[in-house]
Amino acid sequence: MPDFAEPLARLILEIKRLPGIGQKSAQRIAFHILRAQREDVERLSAALLDVKDKLGLCAVCNNISDAEVCLYCRDPHRDRHKICVVEEPHNLVPIETTRTFNGLYHVLHGSISPLRGIGPEQLRIKELLNRLHEADVEEIILATNPTVEGEATAVYLARLLKPLGIRVTRIAMGIPVGSDLEYADEVTMSKSLENRREM
Amino acid sequence: MPDFAEPLARLILEIKRLPGIGQKSAQRIAFHILRAQREDVERLSAALLDVKDKLGLCAVCNNISDAEVCLYCRDPHRDRHKICVVEEPHNLVPIETTRTFNGLYHVLHGSISPLRGIGPEQLRIKELLNRLHEADVEEIILATNPTVEGEATAVYLARLLKPLGIRVTRIAMGIPVGSDLEYADEVTMSKSLENRREM
Repeated sequence: MPDFAEPLARLILEIKRLPGIGQKSAQRIAFHILRAQREDVERLSAALLDVKDKLGLCAVCNNISDAEVCLYCRDPHRDRHKICVVEEPHNLVPIETTRTFNGLYHVLHGSISPLRGIGPEQLRIKELLNRLHEADVEEIILATNPTVEGEATAVYLARLLKPLGIRVTRIAMGIPVGSDLEYADEVTMSKSLENRREM
Repeated sequence: MPDFAEPLARLILEIKRLPGIGQKSAQRIAFHILRAQREDVERLSAALLDVKDKLGLCAVCNNISDAEVCLYCRDPHRDRHKICVVEEPHNLVPIETTRTFNGLYHVLHGSISPLRGIGPEQLRIKELLNRLHEADVEEIILATNPTVEGEATAVYLARLLKPLGIRVTRIAMGIPVGSDLEYADEVTMSKSLENRREM
């Protein structure tokens, strides 16, 4: 690798820390920044910090939100009888993209992983149970990832929720096992929602 | 596409403006930023602005530099008898990566393009001619891109420089024509430097 002037070398290093960005992409982006208008770089720089400063978690579902209650939970057109449980806020994206689910969400912020020392008590499960008391929930769709940890979390939640008389379903394993929800295409994700099965 | 909380939507939009970043990559990076430590985001944000504020052009070769004279021009170990002419500062990267060129550079900051209204007078050609008076230059290697514009620029420079009694060479067309220097692998780039031909 050639030597870069210090601020450029530092920027390449910082960009390389981002997911999916290798050395060549980082260089390409850094040289783009170098040529860009200062106000455009200022906008990007401010947007980065604003995401850290202006977003919190929804008081109801723990999704990312710029208000106390997120845009799904405060939307009167969403079906309050269905809750789709996901591991992380970004897992909502492929589900929303299908436009086939009109219920609410619950974000666990993780999955059960004994190897990493993460048990059910570290996930937002208590908050999910509290929601069942408040609203008339008919179905809980478990949309945790099709991985060992996601499956373990789904099984744990099914055992916990079914005795409460709620219908508990699991998204179909149409998505390649071992992968991440994030990479699912719209059709596979739609199929997966459609073929959810009783647990 | 789902709705994102405003600061997140804005960050995704800003990241999508970067070269080679589509919607999915932008989302992935934005969610990564959301989860990252604030100090890490601050470092990235500062690095972006520093590149705009702390870098200028080398007074000798017009390469990017954090000092009046860039690190290549001030390096006493580089061969001052050879100058490699490139279009843009980022074109130095694949050449330096080969570690087979030990001369100096000259950055034109563009190429002759009648379609975009760019003539020789808009490029840093006068500065190149001035360097020939000051130093004992034996060879000028034309490493402009293998595109119509890059080739036109090389032909223009060859006609200008050969009457001055300087050896003018062109990097070999081992690199796929119509592509950009940036994408060349090390071996192809080495071959290309090795097979430079008289003009």
